[in-house]
Amino acid sequence: MNKTIKLGVIGLGARGYSLLKDVLLPMSGEELETAAVCDTYADRAERAADEIGRATGKRPFLTTDSDKLLGAGIDAVLISAAWEAHIGLAVAAMRKGICVGLEVGGAYCLEDCFRLVRAFEETGTPCMLLENCCYGKRELMALNMARQGVFGEIVHCSGGYHHDLREEIASGKENRHYRLLNYLNRCCENYPTHELGPIAKLLGVNNGNRMLSLTSTASAARGMHEYCLTHREKGHPLAQAEFLQGDVVTTVIRCAGGQTISLTLDTTLPRAYSRAFTVRGTKGAYFGETDSIFLDGVHNEYDFTPEKLWGNAKDYEERYLDRHWRRYDPKGGHGGMDWLVMSAFLESVRSGKRPPIDVYDAAAYMAITPLSEESILRGGAPVAIPDFTGGRWHRRRDIEEGFWALDLPEGNELLCGE
Amino acid sequence: MNKTIKLGVIGLGARGYSLLKDVLLPMSGEELETAAVCDTYADRAERAADEIGRATGKRPFLTTDSDKLLGAGIDAVLISAAWEAHIGLAVAAMRKGICVGLEVGGAYCLEDCFRLVRAFEETGTPCMLLENCCYGKRELMALNMARQGVFGEIVHCSGGYHHDLREEIASGKENRHYRLLNYLNRCCENYPTHELGPIAKLLGVNNGNRMLSLTSTASAARGMHEYCLTHREKGHPLAQAEFLQGDVVTTVIRCAGGQTISLTLDTTLPRAYSRAFTVRGTKGAYFGETDSIFLDGVHNEYDFTPEKLWGNAKDYEERYLDRHWRRYDPKGGHGGMDWLVMSAFLESVRSGKRPPIDVYDAAAYMAITPLSEESILRGGAPVAIPDFTGGRWHRRRDIEEGFWALDLPEGNELLCGE
Repeated sequence: MNKTIKLGVIGLGARGYSLLKDVLLPMSGEELETAAVCDTYADRAERAADEIGRATGKRPFLTTDSDKLLGAGIDAVLISAAWEAHIGLAVAAMRKGICVGLEVGGAYCLEDCFRLVRAFEETGTPCMLLENCCYGKRELMALNMARQGVFGEIVHCSGGYHHDLREEIASGKENRHYRLLNYLNRCCENYPTHELGPIAKLLGVNNGNRMLSLTSTASAARGMHEYCLTHREKGHPLAQAEFLQGDVVTTVIRCAGGQTISLTLDTTLPRAYSRAFTVRGTKGAYFGETDSIFLDGVHNEYDFTPEKLWGNAKDYEERYLDRHWRRYDPKGGHGGMDWLVMSAFLESVRSGKRPPIDVYDAAAYMAITPLSEESILRGGAPVAIPDFTGGRWHRRRDIEEGFWALDLPEGNELLCGE
Repeated sequence: MNKTIKLGVIGLGARGYSLLKDVLLPMSGEELETAAVCDTYADRAERAADEIGRATGKRPFLTTDSDKLLGAGIDAVLISAAWEAHIGLAVAAMRKGICVGLEVGGAYCLEDCFRLVRAFEETGTPCMLLENCCYGKRELMALNMARQGVFGEIVHCSGGYHHDLREEIASGKENRHYRLLNYLNRCCENYPTHELGPIAKLLGVNNGNRMLSLTSTASAARGMHEYCLTHREKGHPLAQAEFLQGDVVTTVIRCAGGQTISLTLDTTLPRAYSRAFTVRGTKGAYFGETDSIFLDGVHNEYDFTPEKLWGNAKDYEERYLDRHWRRYDPKGGHGGMDWLVMSAFLESVRSGKRPPIDVYDAAAYMAITPLSEESILRGGAPVAIPDFTGGRWHRRRDIEEGFWALDLPEGNELLCGE
């Protein structure tokens, strides 16, 4: 495909709009046109269309009906709508031959994950999960170090979504915010893909490895209730609301290769943002919480101090920084991750090659949500994680191809950005 | 009891000997005499007896037979032998009316934990688990803050024993080191009481709260094997050995009060020491990994930086440091924790009052080991944790008494040390 990619965007709330402003519009030009926008709320679609018109001189097709957007002659679609719309929209797009870039979020039932996989297998239309944390500076550096053997054999990883969302969930805009109903009505690992995405890539999940089973345990739900009691006026519905979503959900995953993954959802208690990305191997470790690298024989038992290990990962950048971060100094949202993930998506649309986080990855990561819900309901019982590849994970090696390859030729203009 | 406490010590390996040198001998005098020592290995007992003779001018009774030590007219016994000897020795001592100070370590079967409880209930002889981390500077400060409501309602805690023991386990002294056989032959949370002890005290376990169930998941066992391959000569038995103990064991515990506890055993991969003690509440948090305190409304979302939050707990010492640390500047092993735990034990022997970490606490904490083994064997299945108090946890409030009391009168000479 050498022509301009005509992209549609479905969902222009906070996430879709920021991707538009920070990434898509700066990338727009001969290779990319944001040709159509859609949101259930007309004002959001209009704000986005205005923004595109201002930035490019060409106002996009605008609709509140996703079917119409998918019929508007686009090559690819970015789905950044509410979580519950993701899989249905992705399947509909694939059936029309429109390449899918799917924003993150967990599934609601396991069967939806299989629908996603079958839609791809029946149509051959690529679908990529836009898990931006797979493109984080430290996540890609750790992947690079792991593949060079610096950590030895990796046996355990951990990470989580540690992000105080209380204000966002209970803000004045609650009837338009998709998270609120999820926090009122569900209790699960509702946002697993940060940091599961980077960890799964590092452990070769769906590529010689797979996730076998999980257990999930939820703490009591106290954070939202206490927040609403003190931050909403008396008599406000939320001040009386009972939230089902436990404050901290701990999920432990076992992999075929013997590795374990510990995932934490932690979004309704006061704290500072962290993904706590951690990689543990027989020769070394990366600790995201303190941005520390520990190497066997180099560092010592009592070095876990501000002076010695804390923040020392930057000393390893010169040697181990991922080539994308080294060459291109990515711009755009979320410290460049959004820029890189969108570049990788558009590159896969252009080349027709398997996207770096494909439909099997998407299904496996998104399945954690309903499986964690089941495990919590069953008192922490272990629950099997399906093999969405149907046994092909033994031989799949996407880690050696495309974006994940160790030594790509230079000169990808799209990756360079403007 | 106003006379000198005559103390026996069983087990004078690394742990017993360091407690003797760093804590017991400096405390010795009119109130304490280490009157008898015992070790299966005569040379260890002799080294200890020599040390005591040198320091005090009075050589203790010396034996390799623990029955003889328990018959030597002692008031109290410190049990710092191999893990597998702990409960049998504690029960035997209680049956002779000898107060027990029990070094930490997990149990081997659940029934042993009940034996410990029944021996106490039948004899009334106090038994204290000497969990020194309950007396850590930050652990006591966090307890103090929690009890003053600084963290709001606590909903989740985590911690672990993150200590690279590879050299210790596989050292030249392996046939005398009790850890080796455990790592070869078991796979479990083999050392749960750091940080479970401090967390359980903070959450009121056995005092209005209790631990209900757990799940445990073990990673593959790679660290020891790789270490032995590279650090032992070819043909050495350990270079061929297969270790059963998984490198990282993640245990998640649910409490009656809705709190969850995440515990990690992490002793056979390269890293620096940490207990990663973490307390999460509706108004604030303590993060041991970065020694950070986060308070709602005071700190901000993106403050998790070296400049802002990392290491800021020291700024709260003036206001919240525990009175023991504030008044006495504890000396002795492990940064003063050993001094404080031993002081608390000797104080309970002297006063005859319930020790601050009593036999019900010991049973509950030590039970985590066989229960984690069962959960791992059953693929991570949730396993019920018995109520060792027989329903008395509803009403028990040791947290308001003795060592844990908020406002003890000053002037405990023993606590002051020399």
